[in-house]
Amino acid sequence: MRNFASDNYATALPEALEAIAAANHGPAVSYGADDWTARLQERVREHFGAAAVAFPVFNGTGANIVGLRSMLKPWQGVICAATAHLNVDEGGAPEVLGGIKLLTVPTPDGKLTPELVDRRMVRIGDEHASQPGVVSITQSTELGTVYTPAEMAAIGEHAHAHGMLFHVDGSRLANAAASLDVPLRAIATDVGADVVSFGGTKVGLVAGEAVIVLRDDLTDPVRYLRKQTVQLASKMRFISAQLEALLTGDLWRRAAGHANAMARRLGEAVEGLDGIRLTQAVQANGVFAILPEGAAERLQEDFHFYFWEEHTREVRWMCAWDTREEDVDAFAAAISQLVGSLA
Amino acid sequence: MRNFASDNYATALPEALEAIAAANHGPAVSYGADDWTARLQERVREHFGAAAVAFPVFNGTGANIVGLRSMLKPWQGVICAATAHLNVDEGGAPEVLGGIKLLTVPTPDGKLTPELVDRRMVRIGDEHASQPGVVSITQSTELGTVYTPAEMAAIGEHAHAHGMLFHVDGSRLANAAASLDVPLRAIATDVGADVVSFGGTKVGLVAGEAVIVLRDDLTDPVRYLRKQTVQLASKMRFISAQLEALLTGDLWRRAAGHANAMARRLGEAVEGLDGIRLTQAVQANGVFAILPEGAAERLQEDFHFYFWEEHTREVRWMCAWDTREEDVDAFAAAISQLVGSLA
Amino acid sequence: MRNFASDNYATALPEALEAIAAANHGPAVSYGADDWTARLQERVREHFGAAAVAFPVFNGTGANIVGLRSMLKPWQGVICAATAHLNVDEGGAPEVLGGIKLLTVPTPDGKLTPELVDRRMVRIGDEHASQPGVVSITQSTELGTVYTPAEMAAIGEHAHAHGMLFHVDGSRLANAAASLDVPLRAIATDVGADVVSFGGTKVGLVAGEAVIVLRDDLTDPVRYLRKQTVQLASKMRFISAQLEALLTGDLWRRAAGHANAMARRLGEAVEGLDGIRLTQAVQANGVFAILPEGAAERLQEDFHFYFWEEHTREVRWMCAWDTREEDVDAFAAAISQLVGSLA
Amino acid sequence: MRNFASDNYATALPEALEAIAAANHGPAVSYGADDWTARLQERVREHFGAAAVAFPVFNGTGANIVGLRSMLKPWQGVICAATAHLNVDEGGAPEVLGGIKLLTVPTPDGKLTPELVDRRMVRIGDEHASQPGVVSITQSTELGTVYTPAEMAAIGEHAHAHGMLFHVDGSRLANAAASLDVPLRAIATDVGADVVSFGGTKVGLVAGEAVIVLRDDLTDPVRYLRKQTVQLASKMRFISAQLEALLTGDLWRRAAGHANAMARRLGEAVEGLDGIRLTQAVQANGVFAILPEGAAERLQEDFHFYFWEEHTREVRWMCAWDTREEDVDAFAAAISQLVGSLA
Repeated sequence: MRNFASDNYATALPEALEAIAAANHGPAVSYGADDWTARLQERVREHFGAAAVAFPVFNGTGANIVGLRSMLKPWQGVICAATAHLNVDEGGAPEVLGGIKLLTVPTPDGKLTPELVDRRMVRIGDEHASQPGVVSITQSTELGTVYTPAEMAAIGEHAHAHGMLFHVDGSRLANAAASLDVPLRAIATDVGADVVSFGGTKVGLVAGEAVIVLRDDLTDPVRYLRKQTVQLASKMRFISAQLEALLTGDLWRRAAGHANAMARRLGEAVEGLDGIRLTQAVQANGVFAILPEGAAERLQEDFHFYFWEEHTREVRWMCAWDTREEDVDAFAAAISQLVGSLA
Repeated sequence: MRNFASDNYATALPEALEAIAAANHGPAVSYGADDWTARLQERVREHFGAAAVAFPVFNGTGANIVGLRSMLKPWQGVICAATAHLNVDEGGAPEVLGGIKLLTVPTPDGKLTPELVDRRMVRIGDEHASQPGVVSITQSTELGTVYTPAEMAAIGEHAHAHGMLFHVDGSRLANAAASLDVPLRAIATDVGADVVSFGGTKVGLVAGEAVIVLRDDLTDPVRYLRKQTVQLASKMRFISAQLEALLTGDLWRRAAGHANAMARRLGEAVEGLDGIRLTQAVQANGVFAILPEGAAERLQEDFHFYFWEEHTREVRWMCAWDTREEDVDAFAAAISQLVGSLA
Repeated sequence: MRNFASDNYATALPEALEAIAAANHGPAVSYGADDWTARLQERVREHFGAAAVAFPVFNGTGANIVGLRSMLKPWQGVICAATAHLNVDEGGAPEVLGGIKLLTVPTPDGKLTPELVDRRMVRIGDEHASQPGVVSITQSTELGTVYTPAEMAAIGEHAHAHGMLFHVDGSRLANAAASLDVPLRAIATDVGADVVSFGGTKVGLVAGEAVIVLRDDLTDPVRYLRKQTVQLASKMRFISAQLEALLTGDLWRRAAGHANAMARRLGEAVEGLDGIRLTQAVQANGVFAILPEGAAERLQEDFHFYFWEEHTREVRWMCAWDTREEDVDAFAAAISQLVGSLA
Repeated sequence: MRNFASDNYATALPEALEAIAAANHGPAVSYGADDWTARLQERVREHFGAAAVAFPVFNGTGANIVGLRSMLKPWQGVICAATAHLNVDEGGAPEVLGGIKLLTVPTPDGKLTPELVDRRMVRIGDEHASQPGVVSITQSTELGTVYTPAEMAAIGEHAHAHGMLFHVDGSRLANAAASLDVPLRAIATDVGADVVSFGGTKVGLVAGEAVIVLRDDLTDPVRYLRKQTVQLASKMRFISAQLEALLTGDLWRRAAGHANAMARRLGEAVEGLDGIRLTQAVQANGVFAILPEGAAERLQEDFHFYFWEEHTREVRWMCAWDTREEDVDAFAAAISQLVGSLA
């Protein structure tokens, strides 16, 4: 199978498996009071600052729900892009598990701005309307675009200035930091994020994400809510060890950087082709395109990828840490040949 | 550390790690449409019958909530023992994530009976009262006791006869089957269970449980609810591969049987001692006891274990697949010596 | 106070008070097993057909939540206009009380069409996406527009053809029927509605709405859900008696028709004025307009009304059963004079 | 019909209907910004102290859910008697609408004590266990018993000393105050209650309860939660006017006192009879009894009342503000004659 479908199709990094194996010695206290989780906290403080506390969880939807539940009062909602994972890919979990109303905003590129946030800043104090309580952005976005640190900081300041908290869905935070060539804290702590969902699985772990809490008053809520939201691992050492490995040295940056480079390679190879339109800038590890009618279906006979939007027939091509140059080149060649023959 | 605190403190079986490593080759479709999950279905059908469908999930609380949500209408509740994990160890997840009212019944030994179920079969059809919709039992129980197949079948029949469904929290189902020396289906499918939470983590996996659905009309609900209840693993092959290993050959029975044997060894060693009262029959991998005042705290200086009940000062000693005979013997000796010195 | 703010500012119809007084004799079984509620069922069958069952409730938000909860599985959402009361005026009740995801669609006039519904009919069968389960429309709409029976029937058919149910938020159903000069069933039962929130309060009751269930399989769910959603009145006779009065003779039509006529009168009086733009057709009891800058605030010194949309400065003027011609004329004169002076 | 079934079967006080009629003049701002609600606040401050703020709602279950939701974090539960209305008569509303876990305690007489509260004060700080956040008592209780002010104060102090809040379900608070011959504040404000559900309907209104908030930091949450929990009346003046009437002069005390007196009269008349056992002290407006086998069913042919407990065959006889002495005497005579004939 040649995979351009999802970074979730990818294998796990060898370092992740080694970390699991290395953690498999002797009893360890369950639910996080173990050495691996303690060491993970040190790594997290290095990357996200001295106030950061990590709560390892199983998956990204879980990380988002746990984090957001800790940030919201029951009558508050979350301002987010209409394309946010929260809104389109969590199966109603925000609404059902958290009673969270999503105050969505259409965006051209998956990115909020203070001006777009303002469109949902209405009816403040009116008990008939869900009150905006959190602004949540995704970095890198679901459309493969990346916020600059300045863009994030502007949103964070805006949120705080209006009494809201700032949440970052960082399921692909590593991809964004690698793309921007900045440390993780530059697009988290330093831009005023209050809670970050930090993703490990898509970048190369077997399974492992973390809710990174950057406000002291939210650590106790997150502790209870992680358990209640069925995201507390009993043998947590095995998740923490993987995250520790990812955050040790530059593993996270190498893995994410490779995925990004493969997407860029693919994007550059097909960008000028007649009949193909790239719908978004290729800034992280995804390429979004609209192809001539029927082309996508033909390509899917040999390559795995998904339609992103049923109505516009836009497709999404994702790269991962284990995507090979030769697969990218073969895919680009197949695309080129196909659209050439259709032209 | 000498662990009698929890089977969650235990390491993972080498076979679990090998299965993860073996699954780490090439891309695989995410979210369960992979070869490992397909093979797991075959194993599950061997163990639970041709109608069984497995939905791998992350943890036991998640398995319970997903399963029960699929079985209940919003105005129905779950009849369960007051000591059920659901009621005392899930941090309010049933109530918050599922809006599930637990219709609890005190029991002497953690086991329901049809007669005990009847105590909550009241006000049927009265819209002011939560209607009993499911009977949920734990096998083996939170108190280390085990239902016989006949006892389970009686409850299953009773539930069905009154229009309820039958749920088995089998976080330690392997321990129960090993204790009874019966196949898994003998305490699941064959006793009329509709949905089973089958536990893998406590018996030796890194992480992995499965919602085993035994009624065709519940598979589609469970599919949606697993995602919505944040229990859908993206790289599912790594969970499925572990469960597949556990259910291949007699690994599950060997692992659980050893844990049971260690608990029995410990129970037998301390049973007659002056000042010690075992509060429950030792039928699975746990020993419950009340010690002379102050004794538990002294023992905790050298051995890890928990108080089970704050008011009665009852303690719980758990054994796992990796508990060693010498640790049991050392613990028994320490107990014996201590209570001898206090007598 | 001269009220153009809301039909909820209005008094109650004398007939409503008389009905309450007439019901106040002797004991009556609580929670609906009383003579008044029985007679209401007869009236409801006359107006909505032989299969209709009414469940009296306290208010419109409650009616909507009870009805929708009965129609949805936990992984399903509701396709509705972005301007739906459900989405903008229920304080997050759908999401919090029902875990309901709203699949909203922007509309020019508050009205859905089959084509607009199709915009949210995507990713069917994909467990990551909330599945469309219900189409909900408001008749008359929040923007004072009215669906024709044919428009409603087209939506109802479309919903059913795609396995969805059809819900009508009829908080102002009487206004719509009066506007169209049709019987109530012509915009409920006859267009395929499965559940209707039928409003009594805005049209002239002290308090009283009803969930009208038109599918037999939903009556039992609604019975339980009305209680659970805190909408079951203990002394129900007093709500039922009001609804009975409203549905006896043509009281509902007279009351709603007067409110509509007053809105039409107001709309016609101001329509041609320089600087005023009516943003919606005046088809029920509301007028929506954009005024010259500052004009609305000046008018609010003497007349009660609300801004409808903060960003566009659109205002809403509502009429009620007790709105007087002279108040309409005075308001129209004041508007005319003010915009004339600003021109 | 001779009603001993429920105080909800009773008529409304003439003063309630007069208040509704008197409020029916001219437009009034909806949702509570009206003169009647403003005057109600004055009455409430007179009765409950200067800090009290009333939020009128539709019914008692609604009042409880709104109040408790404002008092709890999502991981906290409510310690209450197993017989609490919350637990047995709210159709799962606490669990479903509020995600509230009820930490129930069996009681002999429906009354908690600090010692009984302590039975659920376990595992504090343990994220696996719902944390006790509120103690809720019912005054007068569901079993017709009444807490003394000292008993209430002891519970309130205990709750506060352990970081919990104190909630009073006062659906029949008037009956308790009348029974004790104390002002309302003596069993609310003065005993440390934080939030009180104050009942108007059972004591004689058409419909009307109030969430009385006694802590400043909860008024804003209750404001939002009342709307979100579908308990915000649009034409609120009609509820407020009734509550205002009830709290003006001694109407509430006369109405409740009469109901209490009728229950006492009934209790005294049957107390000594052979074969009858009163199971609870008659302190408010209910009488609880166990009759000879078959007697209750025979009595139900002529008098309306309910079984309270299916298993023990205990019956409940309720009196209301409009219960007549002659009906009590006739009922007592019928009981006496019947049990005499069975003896």
